[in-house]
Amino acid sequence: MAAKSSDLKLLGGWFSPFATRVKIALNIKGLEYQNFEEDLESKSDLLLRSNPVHKKIPVLIHGEKSICESSIIVEYIDEVWSNGPSILPQDAYDRAIARFWVSYIDDKFLACMKNILGGGEDEDEKKQHFEQLEEVFVRLEEAFNKCRDGKPFFGGNNVGFIDITFGSFLPLIRVIEEINGNKVISDEKFPVLANWAGNFAADSVVVGTLPEIDKLVLFTKALQQKWAAAKAAAK
Amino acid sequence: MAAKSSDLKLLGGWFSPFATRVKIALNIKGLEYQNFEEDLESKSDLLLRSNPVHKKIPVLIHGEKSICESSIIVEYIDEVWSNGPSILPQDAYDRAIARFWVSYIDDKFLACMKNILGGGEDEDEKKQHFEQLEEVFVRLEEAFNKCRDGKPFFGGNNVGFIDITFGSFLPLIRVIEEINGNKVISDEKFPVLANWAGNFAADSVVVGTLPEIDKLVLFTKALQQKWAAAKAAAK
Repeated sequence: MAAKSSDLKLLGGWFSPFATRVKIALNIKGLEYQNFEEDLESKSDLLLRSNPVHKKIPVLIHGEKSICESSIIVEYIDEVWSNGPSILPQDAYDRAIARFWVSYIDDKFLACMKNILGGGEDEDEKKQHFEQLEEVFVRLEEAFNKCRDGKPFFGGNNVGFIDITFGSFLPLIRVIEEINGNKVISDEKFPVLANWAGNFAADSVVVGTLPEIDKLVLFTKALQQKWAAAKAAAK
Repeated sequence: MAAKSSDLKLLGGWFSPFATRVKIALNIKGLEYQNFEEDLESKSDLLLRSNPVHKKIPVLIHGEKSICESSIIVEYIDEVWSNGPSILPQDAYDRAIARFWVSYIDDKFLACMKNILGGGEDEDEKKQHFEQLEEVFVRLEEAFNKCRDGKPFFGGNNVGFIDITFGSFLPLIRVIEEINGNKVISDEKFPVLANWAGNFAADSVVVGTLPEIDKLVLFTKALQQKWAAAKAAAK
């Protein structure tokens, strides 16, 4: 199925790893789309109408249809434009494994990100959060070794479902490294993931989709201040 | 693809709504399987080996392959035995909608269940948790009206992905009603869901998969005591 750019609208935000996932999936399929930048402080009527349950980005609008939740959108894109390069593996078991790691990343990894970015200044707590993050990386390094079989991506020779899901968080990992002054995906500890991260960021379907780190650092610090103020006000 | 019962093992537990999901999916496809009851206090080596990341039930073992996470298992069953009755809709957009509600149930509804069952005796807090649950039911009643188009199930004329996901929680909803002495899916407030719940429990693919309520009440009360003791010990 071909798509005109007017058929496809992405309601996203430059800062959102979840919107980045959709952009990469659209690039893999070579689809043109209109990108709408949402302001989370003042969401558009289109967003509120298109995702009345969660009122969150990203939303993909395909003709008259709205699809919400980034992983669901990526699967939708893969299924509708099934003649393009595959995002999910063709084999049902490999697909289950890909979905397992996507769900793991959205659950465990995301929780670590939230703890680290939203946590306070308590050093013991911080240390614990970084230890949890390291545990997740150990798992992913191991999973990556199993999945890729010597190839450059979790998806084999091409960026696939796990790559998109985890790779879209790479800028946020860099932000955490900047803010905290430590390397979390170091070449020594996680050689395979560090190598993968380089492959990912350089791939043609990814180039241009990842936010600039400096800009994302400022954005994240502003968010952290807002959270801290809200926490203080709630006390 | 045909399957001998020896090919399929389910590591589950009679009390688990997540294991129930898998049982119903296997019934829909008419698949025989060996059921292994796990004791969560002393998990089997097979479970620990088959799901080393989460160490949780359910796990479906298909030949040499282990598939974890109930929703992923249900999709796997639907894809591998694709010649049987469909669990997910055929159309990509309808499939995205089904996945959306499954994710909603696993996120919002499950959080309500945990709050209500794990919460304390504070009346204001309790009231708030039941209000949140009611909000979820309002959404699902609305979604159901949209999806089913006058048919008996979310999945149309047959039990489908949303039915399995939400329906497997029905016994736990009954347990909450028993413990708290109030009706949460009442005919007056949620006529469509109440009607659906009856259709679901009576369907041939569901009969025999749902735990007995009396037994589940005892099991849940024992769990609640354990949680309360752990909470008290942590203070």
